[in-house]
Amino acid sequence: MFNGAILIGASERTGGAPFHAIDPSTGAKGEIAFSNASTADVADATALADAAFETFSTLTPDARAIFLETVADQIVAIGDLLITTAMSESGLPRGRLEGERGRTVGQLRLFASYVRQGDWLDATIDKALPDRAPLPRSDLRRVNQALGPVAVFGASNFPLAFSVAGGDTASAFAAGCPVVVKGHPAHPGTGELVARAIIAAVAACGLPEGVFSYLPGTTNDLGGALVADPRIKAVGFTGSRGGGIALMQIAAKRAEPIPVYSEMSSINPVVLLPGALAARAEALGTAFVGSMSLFAGQFCTNPGMVIALDSPDLDTFVASAANALSANAAQVMLTPGIHAAYEKGVDALASADGVTTIARGTEADGANRGQSAFFATASDQFRANPALAHEVFGASSILVKCATIEDVIATIADLEGQLTATLQMETSDADDAAKLLPTLSRKVGRVLANGWPTGVEVTHAMVHGGPFPSTSDGRSTSVGTLAMMRFLRPVCYQDLSDALLPPALQAANPWGLTRRNEGKLEVAA
Amino acid sequence: MFNGAILIGASERTGGAPFHAIDPSTGAKGEIAFSNASTADVADATALADAAFETFSTLTPDARAIFLETVADQIVAIGDLLITTAMSESGLPRGRLEGERGRTVGQLRLFASYVRQGDWLDATIDKALPDRAPLPRSDLRRVNQALGPVAVFGASNFPLAFSVAGGDTASAFAAGCPVVVKGHPAHPGTGELVARAIIAAVAACGLPEGVFSYLPGTTNDLGGALVADPRIKAVGFTGSRGGGIALMQIAAKRAEPIPVYSEMSSINPVVLLPGALAARAEALGTAFVGSMSLFAGQFCTNPGMVIALDSPDLDTFVASAANALSANAAQVMLTPGIHAAYEKGVDALASADGVTTIARGTEADGANRGQSAFFATASDQFRANPALAHEVFGASSILVKCATIEDVIATIADLEGQLTATLQMETSDADDAAKLLPTLSRKVGRVLANGWPTGVEVTHAMVHGGPFPSTSDGRSTSVGTLAMMRFLRPVCYQDLSDALLPPALQAANPWGLTRRNEGKLEVAA
Repeated sequence: MFNGAILIGASERTGGAPFHAIDPSTGAKGEIAFSNASTADVADATALADAAFETFSTLTPDARAIFLETVADQIVAIGDLLITTAMSESGLPRGRLEGERGRTVGQLRLFASYVRQGDWLDATIDKALPDRAPLPRSDLRRVNQALGPVAVFGASNFPLAFSVAGGDTASAFAAGCPVVVKGHPAHPGTGELVARAIIAAVAACGLPEGVFSYLPGTTNDLGGALVADPRIKAVGFTGSRGGGIALMQIAAKRAEPIPVYSEMSSINPVVLLPGALAARAEALGTAFVGSMSLFAGQFCTNPGMVIALDSPDLDTFVASAANALSANAAQVMLTPGIHAAYEKGVDALASADGVTTIARGTEADGANRGQSAFFATASDQFRANPALAHEVFGASSILVKCATIEDVIATIADLEGQLTATLQMETSDADDAAKLLPTLSRKVGRVLANGWPTGVEVTHAMVHGGPFPSTSDGRSTSVGTLAMMRFLRPVCYQDLSDALLPPALQAANPWGLTRRNEGKLEVAA
Repeated sequence: MFNGAILIGASERTGGAPFHAIDPSTGAKGEIAFSNASTADVADATALADAAFETFSTLTPDARAIFLETVADQIVAIGDLLITTAMSESGLPRGRLEGERGRTVGQLRLFASYVRQGDWLDATIDKALPDRAPLPRSDLRRVNQALGPVAVFGASNFPLAFSVAGGDTASAFAAGCPVVVKGHPAHPGTGELVARAIIAAVAACGLPEGVFSYLPGTTNDLGGALVADPRIKAVGFTGSRGGGIALMQIAAKRAEPIPVYSEMSSINPVVLLPGALAARAEALGTAFVGSMSLFAGQFCTNPGMVIALDSPDLDTFVASAANALSANAAQVMLTPGIHAAYEKGVDALASADGVTTIARGTEADGANRGQSAFFATASDQFRANPALAHEVFGASSILVKCATIEDVIATIADLEGQLTATLQMETSDADDAAKLLPTLSRKVGRVLANGWPTGVEVTHAMVHGGPFPSTSDGRSTSVGTLAMMRFLRPVCYQDLSDALLPPALQAANPWGLTRRNEGKLEVAA
């Protein structure tokens, strides 16, 4: 159950002006009064996190993996209350949230297995060369260590998989970092349920309470105080461009600037190449509408831009998409604020110079429903008006018509950084695809062929990241095992006695790691 | 030879208000008039770098390794002119500069071997699972790619190893990034000679001219324009805290913020533990003076702070150090500006409350000689006055006397981030060392036992980096093969046909790489 408390390690408290959850499907206010955490709560939570750091960051891989698995078990143990609470706070349907819970616990377990494997430690040993001339070489051993306590800001659109125990928290835990979560006010009950599950796992594993704290709240000041706190050493954020940039600026102004991993804004261009349009324009139109309107289009990887050479085949695609869209029911959006921003964004596109409306979904019937929208423009108009390339969060997309493949490339080269780009192509499009790839690979974190960007697998090879402003740091991913590298730093030990070295670097290799010796991998048995 | 030109790819030009090298040993001005590059030169250099990016970043590992080796060969081919020019522009002696040349070319060759090995690509493959229920999984393949053109700012104190073809340039080249160097005005002839060697290597390898450009200049505006240029995607800098922070701020304010790797400021605490003092206080005193005054103390890793429990053994150390220092000849510093800043820093320490002067080196005889200095204070004084912990670049250090080991730990915990920390210890000090290590490993990039921090090996395990302000990004190193990871980002390819994939990810593994398959390493034969 949940009661609206602030959860600082093992203790709970109330305070601040209370706030309530809103059921976006009705606009109705929930009964529970949620506390607004204060800057004093921030200081208490980060002090506990700092105190927990040494113990938590030096756990054996197996002990940390067991903790991650226990968090997963505790989330499952919440049972259906987690699903019904998330449904009422997000407007998302049961099936989607059950799937998201599966993804959340699967992600924790994948990190557990990867933590046990230990490759992330990057244990690297260059042994002493006492006879080297003119000077001997010292023994040098390097290993990755956790950065320190991490602040996590959950996303509205994945109340489980990108929130309290989502990818940022899971990867920070995997790296050995205590976590302080600023709870998202759009799903406070869901957040508190998951927070209590983590706290139960901390206790069950006998870890210091400061490994996790949960600060619900509605104000930017709360988030700002958390990022500014000197004990916090990194930040994970998923949300708006404005919010992400604000946190980056706070972090950059600290006496000790720290890394901020913000995942912010992307329109995920989909290129329809001529061969693909010739082979399957109608099917592409239907499938595109399925992707762009999935769960009201509320995905970071929503295909908000389609780009193609003008042609009769493209007209077929447009007619098919328009037909599919006109039967597309308006769906509940996550919050009244997100719905209002969507309406504003769609209105701006509809009235922009040189933009025509291809089709809208069915009109909204009920509160906070997003009526999907598909627009069209020409590449010269698109390139002349950067506002047309801004993300409209929700089921909105714009078709950009080009005259030549060079025009397609130039239009993509003008875009800001993106999470994804997609090629719809046939074998006959291979030359065009090869021309496009150098530009695409500089612009995005993931290039897809013949899929839709809205599916993001949690695997080792996944990159959910990309150049600014899709994320604040294009060298990183927030999904997949590589995400934990965001919260690690290398430390070198020179000539330390074996007993004083971290276990990962000791001569006997007690953790059975794959290590590098003079740069060459020595794979664990 | 050199003529003072601005080198933009394969062409050269002159312009701007001319400047001259100064021989710091005499204060005499050199004859050659060096050009000051303009913002127009910046734009031309970065445009060429951008144009060269696709070709250079997609070279085979072997082709890129050959380029790095050719740069090394061309530097060696300059011959003694490089040494004599650097001597006259830096005041550093021949032996030191010959050693530094060896380090510079050795570093290029180490990167070449590591580039050939290919592990830095981190090629990671999660194959399609077409039969997975409820949904099939796509084929996902990830590889590291170069960030884009990199701006490099060389250091004054290593005119070869941390300058035009130093660690930043070598690691950016290794990663596949074209480089634009802002030449350091303290050694413009040296810089131009090395720049011409790189340009000769670019031509010899048949690479696009934009792979390298060299912009000499004296103004902050030039550096600022380079960092602000939208084609530049990362920055490497070694220098003052003020300069590094200024570049970080320019980079953070860009429309597209970019990573800045600044290596700035560190006092590198050396802890003398009781057992070590009991066993070898006198030898430690002599060795300490050797490290702190080496080449006028002009090392980022200079031991600017010694910390120990007050005791008669410590008095022996102090007497020994004072004795060694009093015979220590004042040495030529790198520039008149650095010498003036050193004098100012030493004067401030000498007159600070609670600080006593243990000893000074011999008085300066000639221009720009730094008279070495060793001070002492008590830990409470030190902790109360943060200015005492600021780096004084040169042969200056301060002894901080503590009452207990807890006092030592608290004093170190108060410090800002450092490149290194050193323990002088015997077996009997193991318990104290174990108590200190958790604090040290959070505070620094490298922990040494029984050595001196001024030696920095170029190896796989080296970390020359540390938490802010020792560097801007404590997740990185600027020395060793790991340095090239600063200039790479992961890109994922989903369901692309084999022919469209980068070679590193193709089914036939044409580059013979060690790759990850479902997270497990498959080591190349």
